[in-house]
Amino acid sequence: MAAAREPEVIRDKAAMRAWSRRRRAEGKTVAVVPTMGYLHQGHLSLVSAAAASADPVAVVVTIYVNPSQFAPTEDLAIYPSDFAGDLRKLASTGVVDAVFSPPDLYDRGTGRRAAASGGAVSCLEEEAGDGHETWVRVERLEKGLCGASRPVFFRGVATIVSKLFNIIEPDVAVFGKKDYQQWRIICRMVRDLDFAIEIIGSEIMREADGLAMSSRNVHLSPVEREKALSINRSLVDARTAALKGNTDCEQIRNKIVQTLTETGSQVDYVEIVEQESLIHVERIDVPVVICVAAWFGKVRLIDNIEIDTRS
Amino acid sequence: MAAAREPEVIRDKAAMRAWSRRRRAEGKTVAVVPTMGYLHQGHLSLVSAAAASADPVAVVVTIYVNPSQFAPTEDLAIYPSDFAGDLRKLASTGVVDAVFSPPDLYDRGTGRRAAASGGAVSCLEEEAGDGHETWVRVERLEKGLCGASRPVFFRGVATIVSKLFNIIEPDVAVFGKKDYQQWRIICRMVRDLDFAIEIIGSEIMREADGLAMSSRNVHLSPVEREKALSINRSLVDARTAALKGNTDCEQIRNKIVQTLTETGSQVDYVEIVEQESLIHVERIDVPVVICVAAWFGKVRLIDNIEIDTRS
Repeated sequence: MAAAREPEVIRDKAAMRAWSRRRRAEGKTVAVVPTMGYLHQGHLSLVSAAAASADPVAVVVTIYVNPSQFAPTEDLAIYPSDFAGDLRKLASTGVVDAVFSPPDLYDRGTGRRAAASGGAVSCLEEEAGDGHETWVRVERLEKGLCGASRPVFFRGVATIVSKLFNIIEPDVAVFGKKDYQQWRIICRMVRDLDFAIEIIGSEIMREADGLAMSSRNVHLSPVEREKALSINRSLVDARTAALKGNTDCEQIRNKIVQTLTETGSQVDYVEIVEQESLIHVERIDVPVVICVAAWFGKVRLIDNIEIDTRS
Repeated sequence: MAAAREPEVIRDKAAMRAWSRRRRAEGKTVAVVPTMGYLHQGHLSLVSAAAASADPVAVVVTIYVNPSQFAPTEDLAIYPSDFAGDLRKLASTGVVDAVFSPPDLYDRGTGRRAAASGGAVSCLEEEAGDGHETWVRVERLEKGLCGASRPVFFRGVATIVSKLFNIIEPDVAVFGKKDYQQWRIICRMVRDLDFAIEIIGSEIMREADGLAMSSRNVHLSPVEREKALSINRSLVDARTAALKGNTDCEQIRNKIVQTLTETGSQVDYVEIVEQESLIHVERIDVPVVICVAAWFGKVRLIDNIEIDTRS
């Protein structure tokens, strides 16, 4: 790692694109790490992956809480933020060249609903007909797992990522495998829409006790945090069992649900799916991922583990 | 116009992108004209607009019959094509640098439905989960007018145009105002998804007798062709009436429907809408466009006329 270096902070779309094109003209690979800020070690590992993706490379970190991936009932208003802290952390890596932190990336239009949506960018049908209304949908992959309980989530993610790709025009983009479904959706979107971008999936970073790093962990009480360890623990147990030959998905799934429920968590889903298509499997005889979403108090956490019994 | 010049024919995505990037590196503006081939003077007017859009400019014409904008019941199989003739016409303009004519731009996947769709790219839910499944939707604008009778049409258009934009990375793209809703949808998509592309809307080209040029005109019998003149005639009459002060949309609309019906046409729609939002108006007191779609025998034709009573 190089010494601390202040990244350039860019707020404007046109300035961001011009910056990026200059770097490309200099022969640099442009690598982007899209984030919603409130950065932790998990994000910084994505930054490292971006910095290691090419040489010479220009690394851009975007910090933007994307309103369109939150439903009106969700936690947009309390999503944590600490821009000064984020900048310090990024500077400390010594490898970030620019931070793109725009004020708002959506045309809100002049209709009545624009004001009524509480910041979220919802679907249109607004009267004036001049608000944002274009959505990128990865129609099959967006449906299961987190998409079942968060119906607008991946539509919002695919759309904002498309916008960021078109503004920054990167050669490489890094996504965390913690958001497994998101990562697979972006990979599919890039293939289907022919974006000239290499997607890197970066491994999950965990606290010393195994909890997957998340900006939402800050909302956990100490007791909830302790209980939340049951997620990773049950996933590791499941992998151990599978590698020993217990490949029956219903059995594995029930065990995890039971463990989580016994700790007092409300399970959103536990699913065992093929890694690329996210299609359910009954036996672990192809590369799978077990994905979990569960509530601990008012905090919804997700985690996952990849299992390949052939390796 | 320069003398005849053979455009370079490019079939491969990566080669197309590389070609385009070389032209950009040489300081040229890259202007694209997306077409489905079977070119007529209307298309060549789009080519002229592309050639005039910048200096120096590199003009790319795409020829690709996009299967995803046809419903299984529609005329994909009989859509006319004449690649050799198209190339001759483009060469004769002397301003076309490349023709992008790829074999297929969609990942069809290995599922059962891929084979069963008769060439069209339909919605997924296919078993293998590896086929194309990403769609760009301009959710409000895609619904009315042609979208009402052709529900997958604009989804297919916005998606293929996104793909072509990502492959060719143009600075300018030219669309004909004959496909008025399509043009407005692309403008909105470019704004909403932050494509760094200027969209030029090019005026409708007409035969000497007023019929809007269309690749589908070739399917009209001489009698049908004669009857089809009623579209443009009734639109011109409507504009004349509006400019004279008859701005009641219901009255104007009924008159057009009556004229078309009396010639034996089956009217799909006649709509009077605000030019940018395509929202219905009751009086012509804002810039409007009257859009018509009507069947003459087995041929569905569209046409439109812009009216601005303030000018």
